[in-house]
Amino acid sequence: MPAAAYDQLCDHVREVALLASTESILSWDQETHMPAKALPFRARQMSWLSGRAHALATGRMMQKLIHQAQASRLRQPVQAANVRILAEDYERNARIPNRLVVEESELTAHAKHAWVEARKTSDFSLFAPHLEKLLGIARRKADLWGYAEEPYDALLHGYERGTRTREVAALFAKLKPDLAEIARNAVERGRSIRPNLLRGSYPVAKQQLLNAEIAASIGFDFEAGRIDTTAHPFCTTLGPRDVRLTTRYDERDFTSSLFGVLHEAGHGLYEQGLPENDFGLPSGRACSLGIHESQSRLWENHVGRSRPFWEKWLPRAAEIFPHLRRIGLDDFLKAVHRSEYSFIRVEADEATYDLHILLRFEIERRMISGALSVKDVPEAWNALFKELFGMTPPDAARGCLQDIHWSMGGLGYFATYTLGNLNAAQLFATARKQRRIASSIDRADYAPLLSWLREKVHAQGGSILPGEVMKTATGSSTNARHHLRHLRSRFVD
Amino acid sequence: MPAAAYDQLCDHVREVALLASTESILSWDQETHMPAKALPFRARQMSWLSGRAHALATGRMMQKLIHQAQASRLRQPVQAANVRILAEDYERNARIPNRLVVEESELTAHAKHAWVEARKTSDFSLFAPHLEKLLGIARRKADLWGYAEEPYDALLHGYERGTRTREVAALFAKLKPDLAEIARNAVERGRSIRPNLLRGSYPVAKQQLLNAEIAASIGFDFEAGRIDTTAHPFCTTLGPRDVRLTTRYDERDFTSSLFGVLHEAGHGLYEQGLPENDFGLPSGRACSLGIHESQSRLWENHVGRSRPFWEKWLPRAAEIFPHLRRIGLDDFLKAVHRSEYSFIRVEADEATYDLHILLRFEIERRMISGALSVKDVPEAWNALFKELFGMTPPDAARGCLQDIHWSMGGLGYFATYTLGNLNAAQLFATARKQRRIASSIDRADYAPLLSWLREKVHAQGGSILPGEVMKTATGSSTNARHHLRHLRSRFVD
Repeated sequence: MPAAAYDQLCDHVREVALLASTESILSWDQETHMPAKALPFRARQMSWLSGRAHALATGRMMQKLIHQAQASRLRQPVQAANVRILAEDYERNARIPNRLVVEESELTAHAKHAWVEARKTSDFSLFAPHLEKLLGIARRKADLWGYAEEPYDALLHGYERGTRTREVAALFAKLKPDLAEIARNAVERGRSIRPNLLRGSYPVAKQQLLNAEIAASIGFDFEAGRIDTTAHPFCTTLGPRDVRLTTRYDERDFTSSLFGVLHEAGHGLYEQGLPENDFGLPSGRACSLGIHESQSRLWENHVGRSRPFWEKWLPRAAEIFPHLRRIGLDDFLKAVHRSEYSFIRVEADEATYDLHILLRFEIERRMISGALSVKDVPEAWNALFKELFGMTPPDAARGCLQDIHWSMGGLGYFATYTLGNLNAAQLFATARKQRRIASSIDRADYAPLLSWLREKVHAQGGSILPGEVMKTATGSSTNARHHLRHLRSRFVD
Repeated sequence: MPAAAYDQLCDHVREVALLASTESILSWDQETHMPAKALPFRARQMSWLSGRAHALATGRMMQKLIHQAQASRLRQPVQAANVRILAEDYERNARIPNRLVVEESELTAHAKHAWVEARKTSDFSLFAPHLEKLLGIARRKADLWGYAEEPYDALLHGYERGTRTREVAALFAKLKPDLAEIARNAVERGRSIRPNLLRGSYPVAKQQLLNAEIAASIGFDFEAGRIDTTAHPFCTTLGPRDVRLTTRYDERDFTSSLFGVLHEAGHGLYEQGLPENDFGLPSGRACSLGIHESQSRLWENHVGRSRPFWEKWLPRAAEIFPHLRRIGLDDFLKAVHRSEYSFIRVEADEATYDLHILLRFEIERRMISGALSVKDVPEAWNALFKELFGMTPPDAARGCLQDIHWSMGGLGYFATYTLGNLNAAQLFATARKQRRIASSIDRADYAPLLSWLREKVHAQGGSILPGEVMKTATGSSTNARHHLRHLRSRFVD
C-alpha cells in the first residue's frame, strides 16, 4: 500500500514537529516570562525535547519510513516533493550526532542569558566565550554536512535552501555601491527633516491598543496568535494556530513598536497562511527565511510606510494620541521616511538597513572561515561600520552585541534579511500590476493583497525552492531591480 | 552496587518529573496566554507528554529499577522512604492503562475550555457532558486502584495519602455545628459593619505593585517565580526554581487580588522551600494537598488578616491608594474581618469558607458513589447551599459552575481545603509558642516564622505522611481545636 507508507512517514514527521513546537513553547516562555533562576532546569527540559526530536528525526525508523515512501511511487507532486525534502533533511540531520544537538541546545539556553547580560553592560567579554563555543559547533556542523566551496554554504543552506554563499556575495557586491549611494542621499535629505517631529508621550497600553487594531486590520488573527513584549522582537509558531509575535516599546515614539509589530505580523500572516493540515511537513512549513522576510518587509515597508496606509491610520492614531492632531499627513510621512545612519540594525530605516546586513554577512563569513577570531570581532565590526556608515559604534552594545541571533546559534542567517527586501519589492510590484489589487491598496484595504500572497506564497509552503516561489509568483527569480527602484523613488527622486 | 541502583531509579524518576513539569509549562501557558484556536493542537502536545511520562512511570524499566533499589538495602531513611513511595506510586499508576491517561489529558484540555464558556454564560448544559465523562474516568480509576470502603477513598488517597473518606466525613460532621454557629455569629456581626468601606478605584497596575511588594516581603522569591492573571487563581511549579502564581483583579477592591496573592504565595513559598535537589522525588515533592493548603491559609489568614500585618502595610497601601488615608486601622480590620454569606467559594471569608467545603465534599462523594447524577448536580448543590447558608444561588455560575477543579479532573480534592485550614491554625499556634517567633510576628517580621516552616514543613518534602509532618511539627495529628479557637477569637468573642 503506497499511500500507507506515505501516511506513516507523515505521522512520524508530525511527531517530530509536535516535539519541536513544544520546545518552542518553552523557548517563548523563556524569552517572555520565565524567572531568571529557572534557567538551568529549563535548559534541561529543552535539551530533552530537542534530543528526543533529533533522535526521532534521525533514527532508523525514520530512515525505514523514508525508504518505504520513496519506493511507493507517489502520484501527487506535493507528496513526492515532501518525501524528497524529508530525505534530504534526514541525510543532513543524520550527520549531526545526538550529543552535539543536546550540547547546542544547552549552550544556547545559557548563551542567550549571557547575551542579555553582556548587552545590558556592553561587555563583550561576557558573551565572547559563548560565541566561541557556538562558532565551534557551527563549524563542526558545516564540516559534518559538507559543502561545495566554503563552510558558510552549509550553514546558509539551512536557511535558504539551494543558495550559495558566492552567489549572495556577488549579489551583495553589486548592490553595495547603489545601496551606499541611496543611503547617502537619504541621510542627506533626512538632515532637512525635523528629527523629533513625532516625539511625545505614548503610554505602552495605548500603543498596544493601536498596534493590535492595525495588526487585526491587515489580517492577523488574534484567535490564533498574540503579541507580547521582549528586548528583541520576534515571531514564533507554537502550533498550527498559535503564532506569537513580540515587540518592544519606546514611550517617546509610537512608531518604533508599531513598525516592529507590522514586521512581525508580516511573518505571522505567513505562518497563519501556511497549509494547516500539513503542519510539520515540508509543504506546511515556510519555504525559506528569504521568503519569510519578504512577508515581514512587505507589510512593514511597502504597506506600513506608504501614503495610503497613513491616510487611513493617522486620523485613528490621532484619536488615541491627541497631540498627533497638529501633524499633517505630508509632514508625518516625511518623519516616517526620515533617514539617518543608526548603530542599531533593528532601529535602522529602510534606506540604510541593507548596509547593516552587508556588514554582518561579511563578519560572519570571515568568522566561519576562521579568517576572523572572536576576540577581534568588536574591532572588525567597528572598522567595517566606519567604512559603510562613516562613524564608529560607541560601545559593543551598539556594535557587535546588538543582535540576538548568534546567541541562538543562528550563524549564516543574516543574508536572508536583504534577500527578503529584494523579494518583498518584487512581490509587491507584481501584485500591484493587477488593477484590482492596486486600487484596493490605494484605499488601504489589504484584503485582496493578502489573498494574492496567500495563494502565491503562503499556500505554497516549503515543498518548492524559494527561487521557484519567486518565479511562479513574479515571473523571475530574486533580483535587485524592484528593491532599488522602490528605494530610489522613496529616498532619492 | 546498592547506591547505583538507587541513583538509577532517581534518574529515571527525574526524567518523568522533567516531562511532567514540561506539561505544566504548556498548561500554564494555556491558562494565561494561549489564543483560543490553538487548543486542539495544544491538547495533542500535552497528551503526548503525559502519555510519555505515564509510559516511563509505569514501564518495565521503572519496575526493574524499583526492584533493584528495593533489593539494595538503603541505609538512609529518606532514600528508603523514597523507594517505598515510588513503589506504591508505581503500583497505583500501573493499574491505569496508558490509553486512559491519554484520554483524560485530551478530555481535560477540552473540558477546561468548555467550563470557561459554561461559566461565562452560566449554562451548566455546556459543561455537563464533559463532567459526565470526567466522572466516568474518575470512577474507572477508583475501580482500577481499588479501595477499602468506598470509591472516593481511592481518589482522596491521591491528594491526601493514607486518609480515609470516612475519617474526613466524621471530622466534618463534628465540625459542622460549630462552624455553622461561628458563621452565623460572624455574619450577624458583619451586618453592623459598613459593607463598602474599602470600595474605591484601584487600578490593576497599582494593585500589582502592592501585591508584589508584599509577596516579596513575606519571602516569595521573584527570581524563582512570578505572578500572572487568570480567571481562577492558582500556583503551579514549572521547575525547581520556577513557581508561577496567578490572581484576578477587582478594580473596586484591592483586597480581593491581595488576599489571592497571599494565598497563592503561601503555596509558592512551600514549593520554593522544597528540597531543590530532590525535585521530582517523593522527598522533593509536596507532602499532601492538606499540607499545601495549610501554607496558603497560614499566610492568607493567620498572617495576612492579622492586626500586626496591617499595622505595617496599611500605611504603605495608603501611599499607593491615597483615599485609604482616611481609614483607621480598627475600621480597616473590621472591614477585612467583615463576614457575610457568599455564593462564591473563592470570595468567601474565613468564617464561612469551610461551609463551602462541607457542601462540595458531600456533593462529590455522592456523585462518585453514583447516588447523585450529573444532571441533578445544580439542584442538589442549591438545596445543600440553602441548608448551610440559608439562601439559593441565583445561577449556575454562582453555583456548581464556579470552581475549575472538576474541569481539570480534580475529583476528591476539596476536603483538603478544610484539612488545610485545620493544619494552618495548628502550625501557626505551635510556631507562636516560641517567644522569638511570636514577637517578630507582632512586628510583622515573618522571617523567623518562614524559617520555622522551612524546617518543620517545607524541607520535610513528601517522603513522610501528612500526619507525621503535623505530629513532628506540632506534637499531634490534625485536629479541629486550633482552627475553631482561632475562628472564635476572630469572629465570636
